[in-house]
Amino acid sequence: MDHGTGDAGGRRLGPGDVDALALGAGVLGTGGGGDPRLGRLRLRALLDDDNHPDSVDLLDPADLPEDASVVGVGGIGAPTVTVEKPYRGDEELRSLRLVEDAAGVEIDAVMGFEIGGKNGLTALSVGALAGLPVLDADGMGRAFPELQMTTFYIYGVEPSHAAITDERGIQVLYRNADSPGRLERLARANTVELGGRAGIAFPLLTGSEAVDTAIHGTVTRALRIGRAVLDARSRGADPVDALCERTGGRPLFSGKVVDVHRRTTAGFARGHVDLDALVGDGTLVVEFQNEFLVARDGNGSVLASVPDLLVVVDIETAEPVPTSDLRYGQRVVVVGIPAPAKLRTDRALAVVGPEAMGYEEAYDPLD
Amino acid sequence: MDHGTGDAGGRRLGPGDVDALALGAGVLGTGGGGDPRLGRLRLRALLDDDNHPDSVDLLDPADLPEDASVVGVGGIGAPTVTVEKPYRGDEELRSLRLVEDAAGVEIDAVMGFEIGGKNGLTALSVGALAGLPVLDADGMGRAFPELQMTTFYIYGVEPSHAAITDERGIQVLYRNADSPGRLERLARANTVELGGRAGIAFPLLTGSEAVDTAIHGTVTRALRIGRAVLDARSRGADPVDALCERTGGRPLFSGKVVDVHRRTTAGFARGHVDLDALVGDGTLVVEFQNEFLVARDGNGSVLASVPDLLVVVDIETAEPVPTSDLRYGQRVVVVGIPAPAKLRTDRALAVVGPEAMGYEEAYDPLD
Repeated sequence: MDHGTGDAGGRRLGPGDVDALALGAGVLGTGGGGDPRLGRLRLRALLDDDNHPDSVDLLDPADLPEDASVVGVGGIGAPTVTVEKPYRGDEELRSLRLVEDAAGVEIDAVMGFEIGGKNGLTALSVGALAGLPVLDADGMGRAFPELQMTTFYIYGVEPSHAAITDERGIQVLYRNADSPGRLERLARANTVELGGRAGIAFPLLTGSEAVDTAIHGTVTRALRIGRAVLDARSRGADPVDALCERTGGRPLFSGKVVDVHRRTTAGFARGHVDLDALVGDGTLVVEFQNEFLVARDGNGSVLASVPDLLVVVDIETAEPVPTSDLRYGQRVVVVGIPAPAKLRTDRALAVVGPEAMGYEEAYDPLD
Repeated sequence: MDHGTGDAGGRRLGPGDVDALALGAGVLGTGGGGDPRLGRLRLRALLDDDNHPDSVDLLDPADLPEDASVVGVGGIGAPTVTVEKPYRGDEELRSLRLVEDAAGVEIDAVMGFEIGGKNGLTALSVGALAGLPVLDADGMGRAFPELQMTTFYIYGVEPSHAAITDERGIQVLYRNADSPGRLERLARANTVELGGRAGIAFPLLTGSEAVDTAIHGTVTRALRIGRAVLDARSRGADPVDALCERTGGRPLFSGKVVDVHRRTTAGFARGHVDLDALVGDGTLVVEFQNEFLVARDGNGSVLASVPDLLVVVDIETAEPVPTSDLRYGQRVVVVGIPAPAKLRTDRALAVVGPEAMGYEEAYDPLD
């Protein structure tokens, strides 16, 4: 394959893109996907390192040959652990190599399995480390708590190969899982045993499967969201307005964090955050499992829910707040952003809708 | 390698050996290692099948080249599940192939990781399936509940590679575990997820490591124990006496099963069996976790404990009773058999002694 730069369909992401990308990934992370600030530091260090290229090829899935080999990458575990557990930096790449060896293929490109949070930058770090192009696409268009919640699996990619690697180099390879849910449970149990965080490579798919099943353009989307917010800040405009305009989202609630319930259990950060309105006596509760999943008003009515994106941002700067960073007294806006179309089909809702995640309410689309 | 038959060090096991081997493996299983009757059926079917050789090469570890590649095989899970869960028959061989591929070696010989129970016959079935010789040795000289309790790991083999396969063909490969206990916990969690039973291949070791760390001659030992009991039965002699004479064991208690407490939990069959003496008013409690671990008299004093072998056998036939078959009213003898020397060192007792398995009492050797 020719991964030429500058020609049609080919763009390169460099150090100047990292801050905006991290901010946008934080927005699309809806509180999870790992703290994007860690991903930003890692990616910038790699691009600044003389031993690695100073930019990464960004490809549209359609630019790949149909039979190209692609693998998704990212971190698996609880964001609360990711902040504290030492990270080696090549966990995802080593997982990719294990999948490559086990499947007897040569990987042509990588892709984030989720664009949200730290995982929105991880594929670019792997691309920089391995000299591989990165697809402008992902499998969630946001972040979700579990592996089966990717459009890859929802739209029929087989869970044939996946691998995890921890910071000590301990590796586990999964072959021929009989369902994506089985793969999730196998990998989650091992991630918990390894301390609550590992780098994962999944799924292995072809170029044409990437075209058919991935959500396209999401790296570019994150970059543009980040740029819009940064630009508004520098112009003295309202960054929350800029965020809403760029994402098609709208503010659902402005309030102060009055309580946070959070446990790290079974490999997830679960809990809810309670907000009091800044004006008037309204309240809001946002429930999360790594990601923000459901927002309810004081009457218990659902204002928005998965798969639509619930983003908690600082009221002044529009800086997204990861679930691991929620704290009493924060003044925030809860923004609701309509989910990508591939998450709104019946097939997708059976996996990523509110009922699939244990809530009683059927999905009521935001827009 | 030349695996010639009939020459020095080489013997072949055929269909006529299977019954005695299964009986002896049942004795050495101390209630666990899987029900040997299942292993007997499987091995006999393979040896009777025209598509497979009608006998299997049995090799002393010392007959292997020092740099030969050997892998241990057997089942992992709860014996209670093994009795009920459909078994495909090539789980261990597929695990072996996955280890072989991942390590980039060609396996020269297989070995049971434990000689006790069904697992005492599994290596021979794998040998018949794959046309590979089987070592006259194992890693326990009996059966134990967990993977780290093998002399391979106790005496320094690295847990570099291991793999499990279930009856659906789902496979998990473990590389570079930082301790045998880590490997045990990773594989156990996945075995539970896969329904409580899988075929496992571990560890990968060299010919010289097999010589140094395995317990030698245990396939032959099982065969001779079985033959001694079968011979006593056919002569009308006391088979329990014959068993004790052949094993160096002695009867600790003769009684009737009056209660059985058994739960299948976290991938193990755990519980205890309560016995009343056939003569007098003595009682005995034998605690088990897959295998019988500790026998206590009515005062709570330990009569025998791991690593010494506790075997519960039918009082008339000396047929060993797996923990999964314990039932009210059985009339049994509890036999204590001294553990092999490799299980009695300080290094081994730190892993397989009573204190390592959660009991308060220090090990008090049987003989």
